[in-house]
Amino acid sequence: MPDGRLRGHTSELYWNFVTPYGGVTAATVLNSILLQPQRLGDPVALTVNFAGPIRAGELFVAARLERSNRSTQHWSVLLTQPADPRPLVSAIAVFAPRRPSWGRTEIAPPLVAAPQASARVPSVPGLRWPALYEMYYVHGRPGQANDDSITHHWIRDAPPRDLDFASLTSICDAFFPRLFMLRPQVVPVATVSLNIYFHLDSEALSRQSTAHLLGVARGQVYHEGYFDQEAQVWGRDDRLLATTHQLVWFKE
Amino acid sequence: MPDGRLRGHTSELYWNFVTPYGGVTAATVLNSILLQPQRLGDPVALTVNFAGPIRAGELFVAARLERSNRSTQHWSVLLTQPADPRPLVSAIAVFAPRRPSWGRTEIAPPLVAAPQASARVPSVPGLRWPALYEMYYVHGRPGQANDDSITHHWIRDAPPRDLDFASLTSICDAFFPRLFMLRPQVVPVATVSLNIYFHLDSEALSRQSTAHLLGVARGQVYHEGYFDQEAQVWGRDDRLLATTHQLVWFKE
Repeated sequence: MPDGRLRGHTSELYWNFVTPYGGVTAATVLNSILLQPQRLGDPVALTVNFAGPIRAGELFVAARLERSNRSTQHWSVLLTQPADPRPLVSAIAVFAPRRPSWGRTEIAPPLVAAPQASARVPSVPGLRWPALYEMYYVHGRPGQANDDSITHHWIRDAPPRDLDFASLTSICDAFFPRLFMLRPQVVPVATVSLNIYFHLDSEALSRQSTAHLLGVARGQVYHEGYFDQEAQVWGRDDRLLATTHQLVWFKE
Repeated sequence: MPDGRLRGHTSELYWNFVTPYGGVTAATVLNSILLQPQRLGDPVALTVNFAGPIRAGELFVAARLERSNRSTQHWSVLLTQPADPRPLVSAIAVFAPRRPSWGRTEIAPPLVAAPQASARVPSVPGLRWPALYEMYYVHGRPGQANDDSITHHWIRDAPPRDLDFASLTSICDAFFPRLFMLRPQVVPVATVSLNIYFHLDSEALSRQSTAHLLGVARGQVYHEGYFDQEAQVWGRDDRLLATTHQLVWFKE
């Protein structure tokens, strides 16, 4: 658009109950920066705050470069829709060219069984987007009263496609809400803030190709209408691709 | 100021090597929202991205209410200085009135010894702000090559003062950089993104009074110039007050 905003449209495929699946909205926000000609380097940090329900239809995404220096770029993004000038999503991100350094991965992925079709997550009535992922739970059983909310699951796009930062971003939100791991009853939930740190550059990311990723997640605290969720996304060769955290509102 | 921005000044007491201590900058950002007349409820999520070095002197903080609905307020904050129109800090936050709900704390604080003056962190030459905290390490020894970066420390303001959201925010950044828990050599480090989820309201927070808080932290991955750090801040009565994550740039 003439004012620099990007124009898009919600996707029926990724529609959730009352608004698009949050992972795809976060990926849309990230992509609005990836598409900017002055963008340098790869995403290292992304925070997406969900301020209101996006309705089916047209949407506008405005990415603004707040500050750039030799080693980092700081971006902010607002998502709006035609009927309402107030943002429905408010996000900030850090991009940077990665450079070689000393490194270590201090935690290890859990030892889990390979993806097995028998463990594939059952479909959710009325929702199409879960079927756009191959997802196999290998630890933790969603939708029942478990002792803890820890889950390990394999995940990749269905049909398989090469991993990129947009798909990794979306995968960071594809964890079953932790509340439903402790209490089976279904109540309204909505992510209010999603935070992702990326731990590899686009070249290393492309080497993940169509590998299944291993997601490890748990909640820490559920209190006065909100709970948190912390997670790691592991890739091929035991690489920790992303660490992610979110805060989720729930209603009783 | 007439345009709604708040005017402040860096503090000599909280000066770090080349810029203010990041925790106090994050607290300043949060406070700029707490001071707004239309602010509703308490902070539940805060992300502060540090875009450039704040210099000693005057600073301006502009808090903007991006969207408000029945249950949440979404804010964005930019911090600038007179000499440069580009933001030095870019932040977003979610505020909400808390309401009673089902709750559980799924993790537990480590069992540790009470604060002992003998374990007080030694002062850092040239820095005054560490002495503005009473800080006692009870697990993990900063500044040497440890097997992992896990630390447990007691912390409160010195002299003691009642806990509020600004002081809790600042305490969320008072963790020794995880890199220095694994490698004793000192290299330049800088937090680029600090994320905090708050798990109690102001009334419960005030009941913490001047209690020592227990900070538990670890790094997960150090790669290509950045590392992450995840932490919990526990209070009196085994209450999990805040969960926090940050991404730190380092130079070799």
